Order: sequence, then structure tokens, then C-alpha cells
Amino acid sequence: MSKKKPLILVTNDDGITAPGIRTLIEVMNTIGDVVVVAPDAPQSAMGHAITINDTLYCNKVTVNEEEPQTEYSCSGTPVDCVKLAVNEILKRKPDLCVSGINHGSNSSINVIYSGTMSAAVEAGTIGIPSIGFSLLDYSLEADFEPAKKYVKLMVEQCLEQGLPKGVVLNVNIPKLPESNIKGIKVCRQADAHWEETFDKRKSPLGKDYYWLTGEFINKDKGEDTDEWALENGYVSVVPVQFDLTAHHAIKDINSWKL
Amino acid sequence: MSKKKPLILVTNDDGITAPGIRTLIEVMNTIGDVVVVAPDAPQSAMGHAITINDTLYCNKVTVNEEEPQTEYSCSGTPVDCVKLAVNEILKRKPDLCVSGINHGSNSSINVIYSGTMSAAVEAGTIGIPSIGFSLLDYSLEADFEPAKKYVKLMVEQCLEQGLPKGVVLNVNIPKLPESNIKGIKVCRQADAHWEETFDKRKSPLGKDYYWLTGEFINKDKGEDTDEWALENGYVSVVPVQFDLTAHHAIKDINSWKL
Repeated sequence: MSKKKPLILVTNDDGITAPGIRTLIEVMNTIGDVVVVAPDAPQSAMGHAITINDTLYCNKVTVNEEEPQTEYSCSGTPVDCVKLAVNEILKRKPDLCVSGINHGSNSSINVIYSGTMSAAVEAGTIGIPSIGFSLLDYSLEADFEPAKKYVKLMVEQCLEQGLPKGVVLNVNIPKLPESNIKGIKVCRQADAHWEETFDKRKSPLGKDYYWLTGEFINKDKGEDTDEWALENGYVSVVPVQFDLTAHHAIKDINSWKL
Repeated sequence: MSKKKPLILVTNDDGITAPGIRTLIEVMNTIGDVVVVAPDAPQSAMGHAITINDTLYCNKVTVNEEEPQTEYSCSGTPVDCVKLAVNEILKRKPDLCVSGINHGSNSSINVIYSGTMSAAVEAGTIGIPSIGFSLLDYSLEADFEPAKKYVKLMVEQCLEQGLPKGVVLNVNIPKLPESNIKGIKVCRQADAHWEETFDKRKSPLGKDYYWLTGEFINKDKGEDTDEWALENGYVSVVPVQFDLTAHHAIKDINSWKL
């Protein structure tokens, strides 16, 4: 029977010991054979970065002896982890890649900064059905219990139904007790952006430096967006594509005097 | 008259002293008032990474006293550079952001790994018309002369015509003498991906490590792609969007048992 179990690759961007990925592993162990390849340290906001000018280390590790999965800790970015897993570690292409559960939102424009989602997108580019999960709670003490049910449901449906070609899923879960979560909404990415204010300071040696701090600005009032869903107590599911072509704009640009 | 000159922000991912950005600055000085905010060291393949767990340094520098532009060298990623420029350095929102000229291709799926394009996309998210330029030659001795004409033409047309909302341009220039470049094609992103082979080695202390090396696989034979255009001697222009929603897939996912 075991040959029928799906092979599931698990990764994240908060690092292999983060509570979010431990919850994801726990749920995935109820569904398939699990191999974890995740960063050895936090790699948040790394976007789709890859390591091309440096070496990569990747070591088999045991985080908890009582758990059945195989785990590897990697010195690279989330995207490096997926590439290493698929090309160097796994004997066959996984049936699914899941990334997360991220500590904090990856809704709306955050998808482009997110290491969690970039790992999912990377798996998507090589034809692996893939889902990124995030919980709207940055805390390391975040309660991932309410997320489990939705993670399991989404993964089981994904394995059963399959994903359209060129599409991965961005799933965000509101910070609410399970009884207050109203269900799941399939959405579009809200049209929002970040406005930064830089916190300028002086080092002990008198050198100016900055901390990046930002404010999330969402003027998109659509009720079909991920932001709306999350604010209204739903889990948001956005199908995400990595063909970035703005097909509708090709005609416009063709009218230029080129 | 000078108040009519457009304010142009220039950045890149190869670092402020790379020949590609020096060429871009040279061409932009013939069009507008130029401010450069670029990484102090190479930041290739950084994707949309931002610096959130570390400090940022940003210093006014003079690379060549005879040139009119103002320049800042920044310790962060290309996306950090755009954020710092817009929120901390520039007195007003620039009329245009240009990124590059990258040493090497950013066509097809490379757009998602590219620091050059992520800087352009970041500017786009805050409503600044934006273009990323790349030359298909990784060499530091690459000949950027043939690129100048196309960079100038694209920028002038962009300033004149404007860009559709939510769209930035990904311009790739073939490695050819100017007389062999056939013109410009507006294209879609080719459906290609990378297959990695990891070069596994042992450190002097006996530890395994890897170098990521990859092969670009393009099975997309469409004659409307950027890959086709570049292989056939054209400059490719892909309109790129940062709404990653796969709108066509929403109906599919809505049919799942959620």
C-alpha cells in the first residue's frame, strides 16, 4: 500500500525549527511520505533569491526522533532548498510541494517578497503541484491549531483534483479561533503596496544607517480580494501564476513608435 | 527649461560600478535629471529580496567627477535601493525608473530570479513607470554600444506614451553588432525553466558542499516569445505584471470541494 502514498516535499522560509513548518510536517505525515528540505536559519523576505556566488551546505538532520519524515537542513534560500531537494536529494519528483506555514501574512503584494511563496513558485516552474501556507500571526508563539484543518483540506483536494498548468496556490489563514473561521474563499490578489519609512540612526562610530520599516497600503475595496476575505474571517486562496506577461498590454506597447 | 526634464531613477543588480549601469547612466543623462541609487556590490539573482533583519547603509558617492548625475551606493538589495531612493533620497516621485543594463539575460522565467527586474517591479508597485534592461552577455567586457540606441528609444517612448497601470517592461538585447539587430519585438515570456545539476565537493575540513549550476530548458516553440525574438536577432520587450493572480484558474479552484 505504501507505494500509493504521495511523496510530499516540505519547505519554508522561517527555518527548519520554526513552529509553522513543524505543524505543516505533522499534517503532511497524515497524508503522505514526507521529506523536509528547509533553511537552517530564517530566510524571510528573500523573495526568489538563489545562491549563485556562494557554496551551499545541506545536512541530514533529526529534529524529533519520534517523527517519521526525513529532514535536511540547508544553508541556502527557500528556492535553493527546492532545487536541492528535486535535483540532489529526492529519488523521484515529488507529487506535491508545500511551503510554510509562514509566520505572517503573504497576501496581496506580499507574494512577491515572500520566500515561502517563492519556494512554492519554484516547485511550480518544474511542474510540481505546489501550495504556500501562511498564518496571519508573526509571533513564534502563534497558535497553528486552527490552521491544520484547512491545510489538510487544501492538500487533499489539490492531490485529488490537480492544479491547472502554471498555477500554484497562495493560502493565507486569518488569526482567529477555529470556530470563528467562516470557510475558504478563492480570491484575486488585492491591489495593494508598501510605503516605507526608514528609521535613520547613527552607529557608535558615527556612521548613518537605516532600518527599513513599512506600512501596508490597501486601497482595493473589491470583495473578491484576499485582503477582503481575510478581514472577513475567511481563509484566502489565490491561484498564482509565474507567467508574468501582461498579455493585455502587448497591444498597447505594439502601438508605440518602435 | 530644466523643470521640464524628467527625473530618472537608475539602479541595477550588478553593483554601482558595473559597465552596464554606467552605460545606462550615460544614455539617461541625454534625456533627464538622473539620480542613481544602486548596490555597493553585486546582487545578482537576489529576486525580490529585501533587508528586514539587518541595517542598511547608503552613501553619496562620486564615481566620475565629470558626470552630472547624483549617485548613492547602498548596502542592500536592488529592491532596497528603490525603496530608499523613493522614500528617503528623492525629493519627489521620479518620472521613470530604469534598472540595468544587466550583464546577462533576464528573458523568460529568469524574470523571477532577477534583481534587475525586481527593482523595476518594485518601482512599478508604487506607480512609477519602470523598465529593466538586460544584455545577453555576462562578461564584464561586454559591448554595450549596440544597446544604447534601443535603451534611448524605449525610454523616450515610455515617457511619451506612458505605461498601462500595473505593468513594467522587461527589455532584453541580443549579443550582436548593432547592424545585425533586426529591431524590436513585443513578446510574451517563454514557458521555460531551469534544471539544476549540483556540483558536489568536499571542503578542506571534509564537509560536503554544493555549487548550484543549472541548464536553461526551453521547450516553448512559440514565435511570439522573448526567446524566439532574441534567437532571431530582435530586442525583446515583455510587458510584466505584478498581479500574479491566475484569474483563469479561479473557476477551476472554485469547483473543488472546499
